[in-house]
Amino acid sequence: MTELEKSMESLIMVFHRYAKEGKERKFLTKKELKKLLESELPNFLKKNPDAVDKVMKDLDQNKDDELDFEEFVPFVAGLAITCEKCAAKHDKKDRK
Amino acid sequence: MTELEKSMESLIMVFHRYAKEGKERKFLTKKELKKLLESELPNFLKKNPDAVDKVMKDLDQNKDDELDFEEFVPFVAGLAITCEKCAAKHDKKDRK
Repeated sequence: MTELEKSMESLIMVFHRYAKEGKERKFLTKKELKKLLESELPNFLKKNPDAVDKVMKDLDQNKDDELDFEEFVPFVAGLAITCEKCAAKHDKKDRK
Repeated sequence: MTELEKSMESLIMVFHRYAKEGKERKFLTKKELKKLLESELPNFLKKNPDAVDKVMKDLDQNKDDELDFEEFVPFVAGLAITCEKCAAKHDKKDRK
């Protein structure tokens, strides 16, 4: 498996580790999202202690109080984009 | 680093491995996107040999013939969503 394939697989595995079994597929309840954030993104919640409600509200497109993988992925994509921009700024400062 | 943090880091590292240095940040040209797809997602191009042009066109939001990381991430997110749906279908079949 390539690095990019592993990266995608990890993303799916992490989601499935915290998401409970639904009839059709797996879903994250707010409680499970909180657990995922606490374990997988400890710094995120430290900086935004009451972010779980807002994250849930922003991601829950169909307003069923649960997140499927398709609703969850944009959150990780957004974080990765923010991290990449930070890294690019640091690179620029280091080169001055 | 947690598994989710590593997954995001890998995504950024893979992009930076193939993207050339721009003035402000790093960008993928079409040639570099092709190289990335050939190496990191070999099965994708095998099934869609002339997908590079279409992928570039779909992702290149500002039409500058280059992809920054923000333009690239939705492609990987979309693939991960598709993979997760396939895996869910297989799981369902296995449980019948």
